[in-house]
Amino acid sequence: MKIIIVGASGTMGKYLTSAFEKEHEIVKAASKGGDIRVDITAAESIENMYRQVGAFDSLICTAGPTYVGPWKKMTDKEFRKGIEGKLMGQVNLVLIGQHYINPKGSFSLITGELTNEPQLNFANASAANGAIEAFVRAAAIELENGIRINAVSPTVIENSPQYFPFFPGDIPVTMQQLEYGFRKSIFGANTGQVIKPY
Amino acid sequence: MKIIIVGASGTMGKYLTSAFEKEHEIVKAASKGGDIRVDITAAESIENMYRQVGAFDSLICTAGPTYVGPWKKMTDKEFRKGIEGKLMGQVNLVLIGQHYINPKGSFSLITGELTNEPQLNFANASAANGAIEAFVRAAAIELENGIRINAVSPTVIENSPQYFPFFPGDIPVTMQQLEYGFRKSIFGANTGQVIKPY
Repeated sequence: MKIIIVGASGTMGKYLTSAFEKEHEIVKAASKGGDIRVDITAAESIENMYRQVGAFDSLICTAGPTYVGPWKKMTDKEFRKGIEGKLMGQVNLVLIGQHYINPKGSFSLITGELTNEPQLNFANASAANGAIEAFVRAAAIELENGIRINAVSPTVIENSPQYFPFFPGDIPVTMQQLEYGFRKSIFGANTGQVIKPY
Repeated sequence: MKIIIVGASGTMGKYLTSAFEKEHEIVKAASKGGDIRVDITAAESIENMYRQVGAFDSLICTAGPTYVGPWKKMTDKEFRKGIEGKLMGQVNLVLIGQHYINPKGSFSLITGELTNEPQLNFANASAANGAIEAFVRAAAIELENGIRINAVSPTVIENSPQYFPFFPGDIPVTMQQLEYGFRKSIFGANTGQVIKPY
């Protein structure tokens, strides 16, 4: 299976690459490093990535920039970070990618528990996650040729302890749990689901 | 109570105006007509509206433009309609409005069942709704001085029969049910809720 990992240079992307590369052909896409450079905030850059990769079977996205910061100073400008990044970035990966993906392929996007369990300073990520989860449900009834789409929604990730203070009481998701979430999305038969690997 | 209704010239806005104007001071804001012109896709226009209105107790938004159309031709460009309209329009009404609203005031935004029950051609509205519902939960834990925020999420509206063919099997929400949804948000004590008035 030919799997594109967008965000391949990040904590999650690196782990998933090493988990899947023994049995599959992995195309590492990232804003820095990787096999192919991609800026998910620019539709042209996404189109360009797909043109270079050609037909593929599965796309994983672990890239989702959002704004983290105090509510009272949040304005349209700060909020755009998650709108252009985690939201429109992932939407465009699907809207454009549908024209390149093989029949029975799958898209696996990234969200997170902030959709339903907000934390202070993370309203932008909550909104982006909520949008992507609803988008996944809508896209699932539109995609044809057996193409599937799911979101993987972890809690705070064990490999990102810098976030622990912002998520009081969160039981961190292990990297292996995260991997299993993506396994379910890629190799299972579900579509339109929000997969919580915990 | 001084209540701003954004979208006052629309089907829902007109009904809510007549329902609430007997007992409350209503400021009708709309892109066309009304007491005050506002373009919710422009943060400056929203700021300008609040500056003219001054302190207020409650904001209702019934305005939420989104793109409706075939999935396969949907691109970044079409998707922006709901991102700038129903999503960022409503987010900016809150981010800016928090600096003008009275203590114990409330924001009541509009979403819809498409968050969880998608229909063909409406993926853009699903994403915008999902974003706003998650945003409402996040904003509820950030807003201070007893200020509350909820979303009202109807099914298809009885007064919009042109949409019935797109929502097979939907039991339309009556205008009175919609009014009751907003009543619960404005005059109740809940915050961070998605109110389904049916």
